[in-house]
Amino acid sequence: MSLFPSKERLAHIVFEHSDKASRRFDITVLWLILLSVLVAILDSEPWLHARYKREFYFLEWAFTILFTIEYILRLYLSSRKLGYIFSFYGMVDLLAILPTYLSIFLANTQFLVVIRALRLLRVVRILKLGRYVKEAEILKSALRKSRAKIQIFIGTVLTIVLITGTLMFIVEGPESGFTSIGVSMYWAIVTLTTVGYGDITPITPIGKFLAAVIMLLGYAIIAVPTGIITSELTTSSKPTPDSGTKVCKTCKSRHLDADANYCKYCGERL
Amino acid sequence: MSLFPSKERLAHIVFEHSDKASRRFDITVLWLILLSVLVAILDSEPWLHARYKREFYFLEWAFTILFTIEYILRLYLSSRKLGYIFSFYGMVDLLAILPTYLSIFLANTQFLVVIRALRLLRVVRILKLGRYVKEAEILKSALRKSRAKIQIFIGTVLTIVLITGTLMFIVEGPESGFTSIGVSMYWAIVTLTTVGYGDITPITPIGKFLAAVIMLLGYAIIAVPTGIITSELTTSSKPTPDSGTKVCKTCKSRHLDADANYCKYCGERL
Amino acid sequence: MSLFPSKERLAHIVFEHSDKASRRFDITVLWLILLSVLVAILDSEPWLHARYKREFYFLEWAFTILFTIEYILRLYLSSRKLGYIFSFYGMVDLLAILPTYLSIFLANTQFLVVIRALRLLRVVRILKLGRYVKEAEILKSALRKSRAKIQIFIGTVLTIVLITGTLMFIVEGPESGFTSIGVSMYWAIVTLTTVGYGDITPITPIGKFLAAVIMLLGYAIIAVPTGIITSELTTSSKPTPDSGTKVCKTCKSRHLDADANYCKYCGERL
Amino acid sequence: MSLFPSKERLAHIVFEHSDKASRRFDITVLWLILLSVLVAILDSEPWLHARYKREFYFLEWAFTILFTIEYILRLYLSSRKLGYIFSFYGMVDLLAILPTYLSIFLANTQFLVVIRALRLLRVVRILKLGRYVKEAEILKSALRKSRAKIQIFIGTVLTIVLITGTLMFIVEGPESGFTSIGVSMYWAIVTLTTVGYGDITPITPIGKFLAAVIMLLGYAIIAVPTGIITSELTTSSKPTPDSGTKVCKTCKSRHLDADANYCKYCGERL
Repeated sequence: MSLFPSKERLAHIVFEHSDKASRRFDITVLWLILLSVLVAILDSEPWLHARYKREFYFLEWAFTILFTIEYILRLYLSSRKLGYIFSFYGMVDLLAILPTYLSIFLANTQFLVVIRALRLLRVVRILKLGRYVKEAEILKSALRKSRAKIQIFIGTVLTIVLITGTLMFIVEGPESGFTSIGVSMYWAIVTLTTVGYGDITPITPIGKFLAAVIMLLGYAIIAVPTGIITSELTTSSKPTPDSGTKVCKTCKSRHLDADANYCKYCGERL
Repeated sequence: MSLFPSKERLAHIVFEHSDKASRRFDITVLWLILLSVLVAILDSEPWLHARYKREFYFLEWAFTILFTIEYILRLYLSSRKLGYIFSFYGMVDLLAILPTYLSIFLANTQFLVVIRALRLLRVVRILKLGRYVKEAEILKSALRKSRAKIQIFIGTVLTIVLITGTLMFIVEGPESGFTSIGVSMYWAIVTLTTVGYGDITPITPIGKFLAAVIMLLGYAIIAVPTGIITSELTTSSKPTPDSGTKVCKTCKSRHLDADANYCKYCGERL
Repeated sequence: MSLFPSKERLAHIVFEHSDKASRRFDITVLWLILLSVLVAILDSEPWLHARYKREFYFLEWAFTILFTIEYILRLYLSSRKLGYIFSFYGMVDLLAILPTYLSIFLANTQFLVVIRALRLLRVVRILKLGRYVKEAEILKSALRKSRAKIQIFIGTVLTIVLITGTLMFIVEGPESGFTSIGVSMYWAIVTLTTVGYGDITPITPIGKFLAAVIMLLGYAIIAVPTGIITSELTTSSKPTPDSGTKVCKTCKSRHLDADANYCKYCGERL
Repeated sequence: MSLFPSKERLAHIVFEHSDKASRRFDITVLWLILLSVLVAILDSEPWLHARYKREFYFLEWAFTILFTIEYILRLYLSSRKLGYIFSFYGMVDLLAILPTYLSIFLANTQFLVVIRALRLLRVVRILKLGRYVKEAEILKSALRKSRAKIQIFIGTVLTIVLITGTLMFIVEGPESGFTSIGVSMYWAIVTLTTVGYGDITPITPIGKFLAAVIMLLGYAIIAVPTGIITSELTTSSKPTPDSGTKVCKTCKSRHLDADANYCKYCGERL
C-alpha cells in the first residue's frame, strides 16, 4: 500500500479487485482473518494458553485493532454509510470486532471472534471462483425449493419427538436418566437423527422395545430429507430448456425449440 | 367472543373460519394448545416442579377444564354427534383431556396431555397454508406408494435382526451385556440403524468381527429406504412428457407444445 | 387333517395350496414357526428361564419333534428326494431342527432354532402376496444390478479401513483402547458406517484430528451406496417400454410405439 | 520362473501378463502381498506377538527382502527408470518396503507395511476384471463431477463446525469435556456426521438444546452429499434421448427410432 493515497485511490483499493494494489489488500485481509481465527482456536487450548497467555492477548488485540481500522476505513470510504452498516457484510464486519471489546466486561466472550470466519465469504466472492459460485447456486436453489418440504418434515419430527419423549419419560423415569420431558425429547432427537451418543439409554424392557420401534420407524422417516434434496438436485441439474433455443424475429418470441422451422406463436419462418 | 350468542352463531364461530370472530376463536385455541404443552414439559423438570408445583397443578386443571368445555361445546353444536366422537379429530380432542382426569387415580399420567400437540393439525388445516398442504400431499403420496417396499424392507431387517441377535447372544454371552436374545435384538437394531448408543458393545474378537460384518452389510441394506423414497419423490415430481401436447393435421408432427398456435415444423395453423 | 389319508392326498395337502385342508396345513405350520421362535426368544431371558425352565424345555422338544415329522413327511412324499434335501428350503427345514439335537452335546446351541424364521419365506410365497412379490422383485433386481458397484465400494472401504486402522494403532496405541490393528480396523468400520459406539475413541489431539478427517471424508464416501441403490431404483421403476405397445400382424414385430400408424420395420398399416 | 532367463524374458514375465510364466508371477505377487498384510495385522495382536515374536520378525523381513528384490528387478528391467520411480505404482512399491527398514531406527513403524494393500490395485488392473473397471469408472466420474459441490459442502460444514464448536465451548466449558475450541470442533464433527461416540456430550440444558438444534439442522444439511452423488449417478447412467433418431422426409416426423425402416406415422420408407 503506497503512502498517503487519495480517498478515491483508497476506495478503489478497498472496494475494487481489478489492479495489483487492491488484490494485494484482499489477500492480506484473507490471511489476517485466517490467522486471527487460528489464534482464537489455539488460545482456547489450556496448555497453550498457560504458556503463551501474553502473546495470545497481544495478538488478539492487534487483530482487533487492525479489523477496527478496516471497519472505520470501509465506513469512511463508503458512499452509502447506513447501507454498509446494515448490510450482511457490514454486520459480520462489526460482529468480528465486538467480542474482543466485550471481553473487557465479560469472561470468555473473546472466543466469539471466530465469527470472523464468515468474513471469508466476501473474499471467496472477490476471488470470483466462478465454477464454485455456479455450483453453490445449484445447491442453494435446491435447498430453497425444498424448504416447504423440509419444514413439514421438521414439524413431523418435532411432534414425534414430543410424544416419544413423553412416553419414554413415563416408561423409563429418572432412574434411567430420563429426568424430564425436555431431556427425553433431547434423547429422542439424538435417536431419530441416528447420532446415538449413548449418554442416556433405555434400561427397562418396555423402554428398549419402544426405542427399537422408534429407531426403525424413525429410520424410514429420516430417509425423507435425503429424498427431498436428491429429488430437487436431480431435477434442477437437468439441462435448462434454454440451451440452443431460437428467437422469432417477427413476434420476438423466445425459447423456441432448436429444431423449429416456423415460430409456433405467429407461424413465421425462422 | 360476544356474550350469549345464538347456537347457530356459536356453531359458525367454532366450525367455520371465514369471519373475524371464528378466526379469533381458532387462534385462541392454537395458543392454548401450545401453552398447555409447554406447561406439561416445564412441569416435568424436577427443579421447576419443586418450586412451582401449585402453579403447574392449577394451570394444568385450568387448561383441561377449558378444553373439556370446548369438547362439550363441539359435541353439543355438532349435527352428527357420533360422527364427531369417532372421527380422528374427535378422538384426539378426547385424548387431550383424559390424562388429567386419569391422573387422579394413576401417577405421572398427566404428562400424556402432550398428545394435545396433535390438535395443532386441525389448526394448521384451518389456516389453509396452501403451499404446505400441497407439498405435504406429495410427501404423503410418496410414502404411501413406497409402503409395500418399506414393509418388505422392515421384514428383511427384522429377520436379519433376529438371526444376528441370536448369533451375538451365543457368541458374546451375558458377560458382554448380551443377556438375552431380546436384548441382542435391541443391540442389532441399534447397530443396523447406525444409532450406535454403545450401551452394549461386542468384546470378544469373534463378536467384533461379526459386528463389523453386520455394519458393512447393514449399511448397504440400510441405504434401501432412502433409495425407495428418493425414487418415489423423483418420479412423482416429474411432469408426464405427453400431457397436453398438440398434433399438426398437415404434417402429422406430434409432441407439439400445448401453447403452440402454429406447427413449428411446417408453419401450419393448429 | 383327516385320519389316514392316502399318500396322494397327503402330498396334495403338504405341497399344494389350493383347497381348504392344504391351506389349513400351511397356516398351522406358519403359527408353529412363529410360536417356536417366540419360545426360543423368551427362553433366553434369564428370569423367564429360571421360572419356566421345564416348560420351555418341553415346548422346544415338542416343536422340534413336530418339525422333524414334517421334514420326514416332506422327504417321504417328495418325488425327487435328493432335490428336496439340497434345495434352499430343504436345507432351511433341516437347519430348523438340527440345533435342538445338537444341544444334547453342546451348550446354548438350542437358540440357533431361530433360523426357523427363514421357513416363513416359504409361507409368504405360498400366500402369494402378489403385490409384495412384485415389489420385492424390483428391490432384488436393483440390488443385483448394483452388485458390482457395491463390491467396488466395499473393497475401497476395506482398504481405507486397513490403512486408517493401522495409522490410528500407531498414533493412539493401546492406552486409548487401540490394542491391535484388528481392533483399530473394527473402530474404523464403526466410525465410517457412522454407528459410533464410543467404546473406543481417540484421546490424543492427533488421533482426534485424524478421526475427524476420516469422518468427513468417510461421510462423503458412505453416501455412495445410497446413491447407487437410489439410482438403480429410479431407473428400474420407470414405466417399462412394453405398456401399450402394438404388434405388427404382417412381420410379427413387437414393442411398436402406441402412437404408431405404420409398422416401422415393414411399413404395413397397423 | 525358469533358471537364468534372459533380461528380455524377465522383463516379459514382470511387465506382461499374456503367457503362463508371467501370469504365475502376478499371482505369486498377489498372494505375497495378501500374506504380508495378514502377518502385519496378526503381529499387532499382543497375545500373538508375545507367543510368535520371532516367527513374525522373520516373516516380516522375508517379505520385505522379497519385495525389495522385486523392486530392484522392476527398476533394472524398466527402460524408463526415473519414470518408474516417480510413478504412482513406483511410489507405492517403495513405500511397501521402507517401513521395515525404518523400524530399525523407529518403534512401531513396521506396521506401516499395510500400505502394501495399495499394491493390490496393480494386480486387480492386471487381472483385467472388465466389468469392475467399467463400473468403477462410472463411480469415479460421478465423484469427479460432484467435486466442486462436495468442496462447497465441506467448506459449509467446516464453518458450521467452527462456530458451533466455539458456542459449545463457551456454553458448556471444560467441566463437560469441552476443554478447548479444537475439542469442541471435534465434537461438532462427531455430531454432524451422526457418528455420535458419546465420549463428549452436552450436560447443561442450553448445551443440550443447542446440540438438538445442530443435529436437526445438521441432518438436513448432511443429506446434501448423498443428494449430490445420487443425482450425478442417476444423470450419468441415463442415455441421452435424442442420440441416433431418424427423421421422415415425407411427413417431417422427428424422433423416429434409430432402427426404424419405415416412418411409423405415414408408412414411408426412410
